[in-house]
Amino acid sequence: MTKQRILGIDPGSRLTGFGIIDVDVKLTTYVASGSVQSARGSFPERLQLIFQSIGEIVAEYQPQIVAIESVFVHKNAGSALKLGQARAAALCATFCMAAEVHEYAPREIKQAIVGTGAATKEQVQHMVTSLLSLDGAPSADAADALAAALCCAHRQRMHVRLNDVAEMRVIR
Amino acid sequence: MTKQRILGIDPGSRLTGFGIIDVDVKLTTYVASGSVQSARGSFPERLQLIFQSIGEIVAEYQPQIVAIESVFVHKNAGSALKLGQARAAALCATFCMAAEVHEYAPREIKQAIVGTGAATKEQVQHMVTSLLSLDGAPSADAADALAAALCCAHRQRMHVRLNDVAEMRVIR
Repeated sequence: MTKQRILGIDPGSRLTGFGIIDVDVKLTTYVASGSVQSARGSFPERLQLIFQSIGEIVAEYQPQIVAIESVFVHKNAGSALKLGQARAAALCATFCMAAEVHEYAPREIKQAIVGTGAATKEQVQHMVTSLLSLDGAPSADAADALAAALCCAHRQRMHVRLNDVAEMRVIR
Repeated sequence: MTKQRILGIDPGSRLTGFGIIDVDVKLTTYVASGSVQSARGSFPERLQLIFQSIGEIVAEYQPQIVAIESVFVHKNAGSALKLGQARAAALCATFCMAAEVHEYAPREIKQAIVGTGAATKEQVQHMVTSLLSLDGAPSADAADALAAALCCAHRQRMHVRLNDVAEMRVIR
């Protein structure tokens, strides 16, 4: 497993979290995280802000993999419509990089990071801070984005190990 | 009012209609229309297809204005989530052109084209074919996209005329 850079995205129509980590077989290194604020302006202007800001982050950090929560059906159709658009704007900004997109269910991410699919936002923040040895906790949306990236790193490593075991069996 | 090129978009997660017209103070000219099919592949792949296909259309026809239906709350939250993402992918593809985005409620578009906000898809197709003197009716989604563009042209002309009346009053 060569070193890979993963960009995690936690989309939202007002706040989009992002988190970047570098991973190889053993090491996980924190690179950057933060959030894009898009609460002002007309809705197309807000989408444009998300699209351009994530585009700048992609151009600067050049991730090979994008990790994002899979779409889930929101109770409120109006919120779903806004969230869906924000998510697509963030994803579209990564398409120019030809990065692989990996989707994970929210429960799957929490399970991988905290050990339970019902983890709270605070538990996710705490575990992300601990796993990446950060000096302080990132904001809730940046932590969710880093959690998606960490979940992806976990899956990638598991995949590599399973392949190694398969190869060892063949050699034996 | 100098000649303007308007791109109308009718977004959908499986079929995205597009229609391009040129307008000046008096003339409306049909340029092109069609639809992007994105029913296959993973959802990120489908979004990428919409984003890239509309991007190619924007690069080829270079519209100054984009006309699109405003977001409306769907009964089904799952459909809203998919529609919202398809709409944002199409819109993001136009942002590189720095085109103005104009949004119109579905009823507003039907009112402008057919004369009633409760018009059927067939009535919209019929009126679009007639207004643009087309040889045959475009597909339903291409017709909806052309209708959004025609509604925008109508609003732009009305705006110019109101400004002219205001100027004439000032001169008198």
